[in-house]
Amino acid sequence: MLFFAFGLIFLVLFYQNYFIKMKRKEAELLLKASLDSEKQERQRIASDLHDGVSGDLNAIRNYLSVLQKSEKDLDKQELFAEIKESVEAALENTRQVSYKLMPPLLELAGFTVALQDYFERLSKNSTMQFEVVCKDPVPDFSPETSYELFRVVQEFTTNMIKYGSVSHCCVVLYSLETSNFIEIIDDGVSYDFKSLSASSKGSGIKNINSRLKVLGAALLQRDVSEGNHFVITLKK
Amino acid sequence: MLFFAFGLIFLVLFYQNYFIKMKRKEAELLLKASLDSEKQERQRIASDLHDGVSGDLNAIRNYLSVLQKSEKDLDKQELFAEIKESVEAALENTRQVSYKLMPPLLELAGFTVALQDYFERLSKNSTMQFEVVCKDPVPDFSPETSYELFRVVQEFTTNMIKYGSVSHCCVVLYSLETSNFIEIIDDGVSYDFKSLSASSKGSGIKNINSRLKVLGAALLQRDVSEGNHFVITLKK
Repeated sequence: MLFFAFGLIFLVLFYQNYFIKMKRKEAELLLKASLDSEKQERQRIASDLHDGVSGDLNAIRNYLSVLQKSEKDLDKQELFAEIKESVEAALENTRQVSYKLMPPLLELAGFTVALQDYFERLSKNSTMQFEVVCKDPVPDFSPETSYELFRVVQEFTTNMIKYGSVSHCCVVLYSLETSNFIEIIDDGVSYDFKSLSASSKGSGIKNINSRLKVLGAALLQRDVSEGNHFVITLKK
Repeated sequence: MLFFAFGLIFLVLFYQNYFIKMKRKEAELLLKASLDSEKQERQRIASDLHDGVSGDLNAIRNYLSVLQKSEKDLDKQELFAEIKESVEAALENTRQVSYKLMPPLLELAGFTVALQDYFERLSKNSTMQFEVVCKDPVPDFSPETSYELFRVVQEFTTNMIKYGSVSHCCVVLYSLETSNFIEIIDDGVSYDFKSLSASSKGSGIKNINSRLKVLGAALLQRDVSEGNHFVITLKK
């Protein structure tokens, strides 16, 4: 009878374990589908913007150049210069929106180059300093992983800019035998990632968790005396 | 002993059930966070586009009007007309991209009006006919639900346009005592939603599942002789 009871417990445990695994797999697939479809749509919208709006603006710029060359009236020439300035501003704004939708270098040149470019832009537009440090051998990520990782780092830096009073942020990339590593270090206001992600506020932080889950990556927060230090580990 | 064994089984079952529930809740929260943050970012990007690019384009249009009025040369006037056409095209393209990011009527006028507007646009740009039928009392959805539902219907119609050889699509909205209903009916190529969502192909369909899961909505596919018929049920 005891044997039968333990057999039953074993069966129940086995079945429930299988059930949990199935449900977890199902939830992960749903999450992955949601992130994938968002990425695809961002790509579509970014290329709509590029083909449509940027194309029109370039045409306008060419027309204006033709008109401006033949114009002799100084007042009108000044007006042409102002229109051209607006066209340049519209082109730059379009590029920025397109960048937010999908950083073009990510597909063309990979994670590291795209991140360096992103950090240069951030440093240029603020008093904070953003730096990428690559240690040989630099990790090599697939396009899918690159996109999700880029968005993870972007989420961290957006938070820094919004709340962190950060003056310096450094992202270190390196690879060891079985795993790739990304360390994100800043000197801003310290926070506890785990408790923030459990609260209802941190939607950006929850988004980091979603993406890391889909990547199968682990996040560890180091205990530091100043600022924040995170280590993301991705098995090769 | 038997009593002890069954007690143990009960405890194990109870604990595992609790564990499954926690894990499911955690997965649902991650999914919700991912969809929420995507929505917020779309809103931000759409307003960047509106404030930045559309603003610049309106300024360009005003400058051009001033210049065009004082121009007497007929050739140049023609050139001005062409530039203005390009500016209008750029404005329309910007509006379309902005619409894809976030339909403006959704926040302003709610789900039904936004859907009617979307279907009018679709019908105008294709040979297919898209129709919204509202039966009194028309369901009233919160802004969050409206956004997710809109994207669900959009995913269905995008699939119809892409693969479905559909000539007519009708979405019926109605409300009964305890639930709201959305029926999506088309006369295109029939498909089995469940088996498609289990396959690796249907990323759009998986996206529908993610959104419905977050909404706590049920999807039922009716057995019909022609086309497809889906019923989405949302408890009030």
